[in-house]
Amino acid sequence: MRINGQHYRTIWLAPDGWRVCVIDQTRLPFRFETVTLSSAEAAAEAIRSMIVRGAPLIGATAAYGVALAMRADPSDTALDEALTLLGATRPTAVNLRWALGRMGRVLKPLDPGRRAEMAYSEAALICDEDVALCRSIGEHGLGVIRSIAAEKAEGATVNILTHCNAGWLATVDWGTALAPIYLAHDAGIPVHVWVDETRPRNQGAALTAYELGAHGVPHTVIADNAGGHLMQHGEVDMVIVGTDRTTATGDVANKIGTYLKALAAHDNGVPFYVALPSPTIDWSLSDGLREIPIEERSAREVTHLSGLAEDGEVRSIRVVAPGSNAANPAFDVTPARLVTGLITERGVCEASAAGLAGLFPERAGRPQA
Amino acid sequence: MRINGQHYRTIWLAPDGWRVCVIDQTRLPFRFETVTLSSAEAAAEAIRSMIVRGAPLIGATAAYGVALAMRADPSDTALDEALTLLGATRPTAVNLRWALGRMGRVLKPLDPGRRAEMAYSEAALICDEDVALCRSIGEHGLGVIRSIAAEKAEGATVNILTHCNAGWLATVDWGTALAPIYLAHDAGIPVHVWVDETRPRNQGAALTAYELGAHGVPHTVIADNAGGHLMQHGEVDMVIVGTDRTTATGDVANKIGTYLKALAAHDNGVPFYVALPSPTIDWSLSDGLREIPIEERSAREVTHLSGLAEDGEVRSIRVVAPGSNAANPAFDVTPARLVTGLITERGVCEASAAGLAGLFPERAGRPQA
Repeated sequence: MRINGQHYRTIWLAPDGWRVCVIDQTRLPFRFETVTLSSAEAAAEAIRSMIVRGAPLIGATAAYGVALAMRADPSDTALDEALTLLGATRPTAVNLRWALGRMGRVLKPLDPGRRAEMAYSEAALICDEDVALCRSIGEHGLGVIRSIAAEKAEGATVNILTHCNAGWLATVDWGTALAPIYLAHDAGIPVHVWVDETRPRNQGAALTAYELGAHGVPHTVIADNAGGHLMQHGEVDMVIVGTDRTTATGDVANKIGTYLKALAAHDNGVPFYVALPSPTIDWSLSDGLREIPIEERSAREVTHLSGLAEDGEVRSIRVVAPGSNAANPAFDVTPARLVTGLITERGVCEASAAGLAGLFPERAGRPQA
Repeated sequence: MRINGQHYRTIWLAPDGWRVCVIDQTRLPFRFETVTLSSAEAAAEAIRSMIVRGAPLIGATAAYGVALAMRADPSDTALDEALTLLGATRPTAVNLRWALGRMGRVLKPLDPGRRAEMAYSEAALICDEDVALCRSIGEHGLGVIRSIAAEKAEGATVNILTHCNAGWLATVDWGTALAPIYLAHDAGIPVHVWVDETRPRNQGAALTAYELGAHGVPHTVIADNAGGHLMQHGEVDMVIVGTDRTTATGDVANKIGTYLKALAAHDNGVPFYVALPSPTIDWSLSDGLREIPIEERSAREVTHLSGLAEDGEVRSIRVVAPGSNAANPAFDVTPARLVTGLITERGVCEASAAGLAGLFPERAGRPQA
């Protein structure tokens, strides 16, 4: 994607060839700043503090975190410590565990002297694969958008609602839920995106709106409360969201509030799609509601908000009454019964064990590696 | 209700006996300030800018607005102008039209010389009636809470979710949705309230949390996105919300996002109650989704938020990406099929034409006066 005319990925090597650069997503949309990571600790902190966020980008950052650790100390102990440190940053993200599992499997058998180079190489491969996966999700999702456009009057705008940010900022490039939208826009299909604000962290209002604006895709930000009303009045043709973790049966853990939109889509006959690269599938799980741990984040994310003040500074304000406390579950689980289809890099399938097994026969029914 | 040890209503006469005082609800919860209204124009502006809000309080303020107009000029023309001016402030609120209709019916037949005195008297009566209605809603709702508490283990906390502010700040005193909660708390039933933040104007985080805190009721603020997740995990025993307009068939227009919570309650078998004084019933309507006009408010309410900055000032910040626009429908309609019961001043009934007709036989089936 392009920012101010320059092509970016969300994670790249510094000119020195070893440090790792990322965009500071806590500063967007009002400041475009990059952060340079030079240790596994820094990578872990970038994930924890959401300088980087989005399941695929978290996985890629964790992989580079392992590379940074191996460059400093390639011993078995240091490898184990890095995997543990990075694995503890975000409990819900299955990509994180997938990427760290892969790094461990590649690096553990190696002579320590070869680990740093191989770690960098494997992290780069994870990034390139993510770009390819997202591009492929975009192509398959484009097919879904095309068929919805075909049901509307010639030239009529396709209104798509999305929640949180599953765009290129959440991945290495392209995005998951937004990839089909970018491809549809580029293909000349008139699309308009309803962007859920996505409290408490406002990734929709801040990041999705920023991305879509940078690419020139027409969009309108709405409060998270508004989507049901728009669906009741025929103003939403489809919903596409991302996912942080998907069960083998098609249950989807995504940003808190996704479930409410899925209920509204179901109640109004609006197709509800989830876009996901297969590494977000946790093949060991069959009941998302019972089995997926939900991260409880800081109450301060609910009680305080930051944004651009009239003096041009990015400031934090308290919005909750003094003395009142807040709870902050970060994800919810949307049961497969509410999901119209899963858009994966191999195609679109029903949100069910059978649907996923059809696309991923080599994984279905086998315990997770 | 009490603030800092002093009893308040939300609207009262100034010591001079003719000006009208209200609490500036746009300044809460960080500043407690009152505003003194001395003209119908000031009353209209207080309603429009949401210095006063909440269906019953809007009606009471409009009634006093007519009184202020009659004191300045009791002519037929001035009366018509005041009714038109005040009626145009908030399109969704049926109480507003009800209060103005009542003032018109009382004042029009009178000699202009008697109108000012009668207008003040009628406005005071509307206020006193609202207090009595709310108290009665509280008693009937207390019965509902008692029966839910009886199904739980002895001494277990009853967790109640509410959306927006339907407390005493939205009425003259007591509130609608919160009245049963205050009475339950005072009766020693352990209650805890999940307070939906209620974007875009944050009436939950700001006003409901403020009210509950002032009264000592345990509560926790949550993002509007979180309620469905809490219901999925058994952490909500019931929902109580208010309404701005209710059809004769039990459809409910309330703050945007109410519909999403009703869907989640229905999906999880959580009782969903709506508390309403009968003046919010629009007996002329039978299909809320088609017939209730939904107010579209300023995009700035979505793009900007205000709260307490670290320097102690109440500041406004922009939270939406620069260049992105926003839409702001202020209400949505919850169909009667999702409502477990309506809590009115005459008792609790099914959300249906038959249910309402049982409680209000004198109104049901007759065109609105």
